[in-house]
Amino acid sequence: MLDPVSLAALRAFYARVGREMAPNNEKQAWFPEGAEVLPNPIGTAPGFMLEVGSVVFFSLPGVPRELVRMVDEQVLPRLAARRGQSEVVRARLLRTFGMGESNLDDVLKDIAPGGDVTLGFRTAFPDNYLRPLARAKSAAEADAKLAHVCDAIRARLGLLVYGEGPETLESVAGALLRAQHKTLAVAESCTGGLLAERITSVPGASDYFLGGIAAYANSAKEALLGIPRSLLEREGAVSEAVARQMAEGVRARFGADVGLSTTGISGPGGGTKDKPVGLVHLALADAAGTHADHFVFALDRERHRVLTVQLALDWVRRRLLGAPLDAPTILRRKQ
Amino acid sequence: MLDPVSLAALRAFYARVGREMAPNNEKQAWFPEGAEVLPNPIGTAPGFMLEVGSVVFFSLPGVPRELVRMVDEQVLPRLAARRGQSEVVRARLLRTFGMGESNLDDVLKDIAPGGDVTLGFRTAFPDNYLRPLARAKSAAEADAKLAHVCDAIRARLGLLVYGEGPETLESVAGALLRAQHKTLAVAESCTGGLLAERITSVPGASDYFLGGIAAYANSAKEALLGIPRSLLEREGAVSEAVARQMAEGVRARFGADVGLSTTGISGPGGGTKDKPVGLVHLALADAAGTHADHFVFALDRERHRVLTVQLALDWVRRRLLGAPLDAPTILRRKQ
Repeated sequence: MLDPVSLAALRAFYARVGREMAPNNEKQAWFPEGAEVLPNPIGTAPGFMLEVGSVVFFSLPGVPRELVRMVDEQVLPRLAARRGQSEVVRARLLRTFGMGESNLDDVLKDIAPGGDVTLGFRTAFPDNYLRPLARAKSAAEADAKLAHVCDAIRARLGLLVYGEGPETLESVAGALLRAQHKTLAVAESCTGGLLAERITSVPGASDYFLGGIAAYANSAKEALLGIPRSLLEREGAVSEAVARQMAEGVRARFGADVGLSTTGISGPGGGTKDKPVGLVHLALADAAGTHADHFVFALDRERHRVLTVQLALDWVRRRLLGAPLDAPTILRRKQ
Repeated sequence: MLDPVSLAALRAFYARVGREMAPNNEKQAWFPEGAEVLPNPIGTAPGFMLEVGSVVFFSLPGVPRELVRMVDEQVLPRLAARRGQSEVVRARLLRTFGMGESNLDDVLKDIAPGGDVTLGFRTAFPDNYLRPLARAKSAAEADAKLAHVCDAIRARLGLLVYGEGPETLESVAGALLRAQHKTLAVAESCTGGLLAERITSVPGASDYFLGGIAAYANSAKEALLGIPRSLLEREGAVSEAVARQMAEGVRARFGADVGLSTTGISGPGGGTKDKPVGLVHLALADAAGTHADHFVFALDRERHRVLTVQLALDWVRRRLLGAPLDAPTILRRKQ
C-alpha cells in the first residue's frame, strides 16, 4: 500500500532542500498491507511494524544514526508495552581516561557485589567507559542504587573519571575554561589540527578557544610560532625544547591564558634510534610556567594522534582543577 | 584448557609495552577443550573455532578492528575451504562525492545489466561508495568483468568518482599536490582544525602541507591572518570578503602555492536571518587568482563541518586537475 502521509513527507523533504525527487524515491512510501508505519524523524525512509500471527516484525532504515534513534523511540517502547514490563532497568555511563580495562576490572571488582546492580565495561579508544546498570521496581529506586555505586566508583578512581553521559574530555575541559574565564590556544605538529578540531567540536567553544596553529613544516614553526631555526636544527622539531617554545609561542601570539603544544612522530615513517616512531612531546604553558613531558606510544599513526590529543586535553582539565600533570594518566610508560 | 602459546604471547605483549599483566588477563589464554585457537595479530585476546557435531562455532574478540581483521583472515577462509567453494567472487570500491544515492542509482541503473555483475551502494556521509561485485569461474574472469563495469561507471560519472579502494579525498588531493610539486596551507574558522587534521592524516603529508591556522576568534583572524578589523566589522567573519582574505592571507603567511579557507556557521547557535545556521563561505587562492563561493547545508554541526571539509578538499583536487570549481559537487543548493 502507498502511504499518503509518508509520500507527502518525502515530497516536503525534497522541496525543503531544493532537490528534485528521483522517481525511485517514491518506493520509500510503499509498505506491506496491514503494516504500521514508523515515521523517521531524521531521514527520508520510514520504517514499519508488521504482525504476522504471534510474530512482530520491525523494518527500519539501515543508516546507523536513523536506526539507533528509531530503535530507541519506536521499537523498544512498543516491545516494552507488549511485555507489560514491570521491572525498571536504568543505567549510567562514567567515562575514564588513563587506566586499562583489565586494571579497572581489578580495581572495581568488588564495587557492585549484589545481583541488582551490574557493572559493564566498554572501550572507546583511548577511553574506557563504565556502565553501571540497576534493576528495581521503580525508576527512583533504580536511580538511588545507581547513585550509590557511581559515588563509590568516583571515590575510588578520583580524577580518572573525567565525565558522565554525553560529556567528553573536550567539553569538560571547555566548561572549566569557561567557568574560570580563561582562554586557550594550541600549537600542533604531529596532531596536525586534531586537537583544535576536538576543542571546536563543542558548541560555544568560541567562548574560550582563540585558535590554533598546525605548524607542520619547520618553516611554519619558525615564521608563525617564532621558534629559532638554530633551535630546530640543534634539538630537532620533536624535542622538549621545541615543544616548550611552541606552547609559549602560541600562548603569546594569541594572547591566551593557556598555550598547549604537541610534537611527535606518528609514523609510520620518520623514526630514528634516538627518536622512535611513537615518541611525542607535550607542553602546557600558563601564568604559572611551562610543564613539559614526553611519552612513547606503541600505536599506529591514527591512534597515536588520538591518544596524544586526549592526553593534552586531560592536561588542561587537570591543570584547571589544580591537580598535578604527572598523575597516572598514561597507558604506556614513557621512554 | 590453558593454551601455552597464547599465554606466552600475552606475557610477551605486556613485557613489550612495559605494563604489568593483571591476573585476570590470563583467562584470555583459556579455551574450551577441542577448540582450535585463532591468533589475534593486533590485540591480546585470541579467538577460537569449535566444532560440535555438524555445527562450527567461531568465538572472536569484540573490538571492531580486531573482529574485522579476524573475520577476513581466519573465519572466511575456513568457511570457504569447508564449502569447497568453486565460484570466485571479486569486488571493487569506487568512491564518489557530490551526488545523492538515489540520483546515482537512477544514473547507473542500466550499468550492470547481467546477473553476474551486481552494483551495490553504500553511504559514508558525505560520500557515496559504489561496489561492483562479479562472480565467475576464475579471479581473472571476475576481474575482467569488474574492470569493464568500473570503466563504464567512470566514463559516465567523470570527476564525481574521486578514488578507488583505500583512496580518500585527502590522499588523492595530496598525491596531486606532490606530483605537481605544489604546497598547501589552510585557514579555518568553522571547521576549526578538521581540514588540517584530514590533510595530515595521510602519511607523508609533510611533503606538500605546510600547515594551518584555526582562527576561531576574530582577534586571531586579525593578528595571524592580517584581516583588517574594519573588514570584519563591516562584512562579518562569515562573508565572502573575509573568506577571500583568509585564503590569500594564509597563502602569503606560509608561502604556499595554494591557500584554502573556510568560514561559516556550523550551529546550533549563531545564525541570523541574513546568515542562517548552515551557511559557509569557502575560498581557494593560488597563482591564478582567488575563487570563492558560498553554500547553505541544512545539517547538524558535525556534518556541516565534515561536508565543508570534503568540499574544500574536492576543490583542491578539481583545481589541480584543471577542472572548474563550479561543477556539480554539492548536495544542497546554495542560498
